[in-house]
Amino acid sequence: MSRISIVFHSGFGHTKVVADHVKVGAESVPGTQAQLVPVEAIDAHWADLEAADAIVFGSPTYMGNVSGPFKTFMDASSKPWLEQKWKDKLAAGFTISGSPSGDKLNTLQSLMIFAMQHGMVWVGNAEMPYNEEGINRLGSFTGLMAQAGQVAPEVEPNAADRKSAERLGQRIAAATARWARVS
Amino acid sequence: MSRISIVFHSGFGHTKVVADHVKVGAESVPGTQAQLVPVEAIDAHWADLEAADAIVFGSPTYMGNVSGPFKTFMDASSKPWLEQKWKDKLAAGFTISGSPSGDKLNTLQSLMIFAMQHGMVWVGNAEMPYNEEGINRLGSFTGLMAQAGQVAPEVEPNAADRKSAERLGQRIAAATARWARVS
Amino acid sequence: MSRISIVFHSGFGHTKVVADHVKVGAESVPGTQAQLVPVEAIDAHWADLEAADAIVFGSPTYMGNVSGPFKTFMDASSKPWLEQKWKDKLAAGFTISGSPSGDKLNTLQSLMIFAMQHGMVWVGNAEMPYNEEGINRLGSFTGLMAQAGQVAPEVEPNAADRKSAERLGQRIAAATARWARVS
Amino acid sequence: MSRISIVFHSGFGHTKVVADHVKVGAESVPGTQAQLVPVEAIDAHWADLEAADAIVFGSPTYMGNVSGPFKTFMDASSKPWLEQKWKDKLAAGFTISGSPSGDKLNTLQSLMIFAMQHGMVWVGNAEMPYNEEGINRLGSFTGLMAQAGQVAPEVEPNAADRKSAERLGQRIAAATARWARVS
Repeated sequence: MSRISIVFHSGFGHTKVVADHVKVGAESVPGTQAQLVPVEAIDAHWADLEAADAIVFGSPTYMGNVSGPFKTFMDASSKPWLEQKWKDKLAAGFTISGSPSGDKLNTLQSLMIFAMQHGMVWVGNAEMPYNEEGINRLGSFTGLMAQAGQVAPEVEPNAADRKSAERLGQRIAAATARWARVS
Repeated sequence: MSRISIVFHSGFGHTKVVADHVKVGAESVPGTQAQLVPVEAIDAHWADLEAADAIVFGSPTYMGNVSGPFKTFMDASSKPWLEQKWKDKLAAGFTISGSPSGDKLNTLQSLMIFAMQHGMVWVGNAEMPYNEEGINRLGSFTGLMAQAGQVAPEVEPNAADRKSAERLGQRIAAATARWARVS
Repeated sequence: MSRISIVFHSGFGHTKVVADHVKVGAESVPGTQAQLVPVEAIDAHWADLEAADAIVFGSPTYMGNVSGPFKTFMDASSKPWLEQKWKDKLAAGFTISGSPSGDKLNTLQSLMIFAMQHGMVWVGNAEMPYNEEGINRLGSFTGLMAQAGQVAPEVEPNAADRKSAERLGQRIAAATARWARVS
Repeated sequence: MSRISIVFHSGFGHTKVVADHVKVGAESVPGTQAQLVPVEAIDAHWADLEAADAIVFGSPTYMGNVSGPFKTFMDASSKPWLEQKWKDKLAAGFTISGSPSGDKLNTLQSLMIFAMQHGMVWVGNAEMPYNEEGINRLGSFTGLMAQAGQVAPEVEPNAADRKSAERLGQRIAAATARWARVS
């Protein structure tokens, strides 16, 4: 059984939609148990993160970077970091903002650097962008980028972005199963 | 008179279209003389760069970064760098790739870091992204991002991206005039 | 008179030392008034930031990025951002962490992208790194990098880093005076 | 048997020293065969890269980014990229420059983004920086940072950096063995 924790912050519900679909994708891989951890509830879940085989990090892009609440979680993780409790776990990431690009790459790079400090191994968004379904339509590889304007989370992120999130979930779950086979 | 050099590499003509429109925008500001310098011809233009008040850097994004020919120009600039010949000049940048995001931010960050090593002052793409004309439609602030798929340069970058390029040209020219007023 | 606000977060006092020396350097330029604004007190100072000619941003590097309290300030700045109240002001940045490199560049890039979203103009740390005094000894150009281990702020950052901070203050103040000459 | 290719560019021999030590570290893991591929000789080795289980990328940091010759190799890899020939291989990276920091993080980020475009999985430099031997003395986690001034490659990178390179080699080799266990 692979355990995947999806730690995320969602200010207005759009990032939560992406997190939901990453979970759906991860659980479509047999033998995978995925769990959503909103950063507001992190204090009840540090042990879950320590027990996880992989952690997926998700934050909206606010002012070109992870959100304040997500950064506060990152800072609080300096305790498990000191003992390298997450070392050799797999990691992946996603973000969302109003523009197609919108400096989202800086958020993903920040998530990746954070995972590297924790000694984790990074699994990206390995989907070629030009396809009929719009998978990875924004063209991002370090992690998943989604887009949502000033509309309700039911409307955006759109179907292509939701499908892309499921693919990321599948990929991290498949990689976790492969990586775990230590025997 | 403000002199602006636009140093660029264009593999298939799309980046050249952006460079052309940056030039048009710059020259729309009274008292500005703008010059296009393809990196292939750089050896005839090092003195022009040294004489310029501002240098705009433009490269396609290939494999998530500036192109090889553009990087070769960057490395060759270690000569003026050693003597800090470009110190205190203004700088700006643009890039283009096939996807809306497509890791273009890494190219712009690399151009900005490059300019910082040269002691230059960086002028970004200060256009709010949500507007009718599609100015800065991709949502990039460090520099201009444009997009072109596998079509002729006459077709893409599209009208919004060309207009956005003109705005960047106007901005760097206006900033150069303001910065030059040393008296 | 040039007005420069230095907005910073300091968890243990080391970043405050850097901020102090940036202020000293800025005020060494005639006609410059510099002000320290700790992010904890930001709500009393939004008007000062709006009135400033330049804003310098300073944060420790925690887990490879700006600190949580600094990011919270960045998010709160979305109000002046919406009206582009800081547009065309000058900006600069600094950071500090325990290692020589320590992923500090990601913090500086994040500060720069943040300033770009606000439509500001970025002034870097234009000091050649190999010199007797140790100015810019870590080799950073986007902004100033300083270093402090698990010792009191009186001990580290060291004399070279303090001197480097003064140079950054001088540079942003001189640039502000030059940029302000609009009339 | 794990096959690891180490693709590198070395302008003056310093990066070659790091590459040599990554190889030594990799081969210290039983069942690992490591191969050095200078980018100048890449055309004879595309098949080796395609056959490898992991590829380590190494470049000096020139003007804040990978070197021109290394970027030219990156661009040439768009052929295997189009068919995603390197998908799901492991990847790691290293760089070297004259300053402790010296914008080396931008080089490592560029290598990581490049690997992500190829659909690879990124293994970082998971070494806590504060230790007697000076392992990871510069404090870099995305990949290995080493330092060499204007001295012969026999002198710098120093012993701590060489040892750090061996650790990165060990880590990527151990991860490759673990990842390969697919059966």
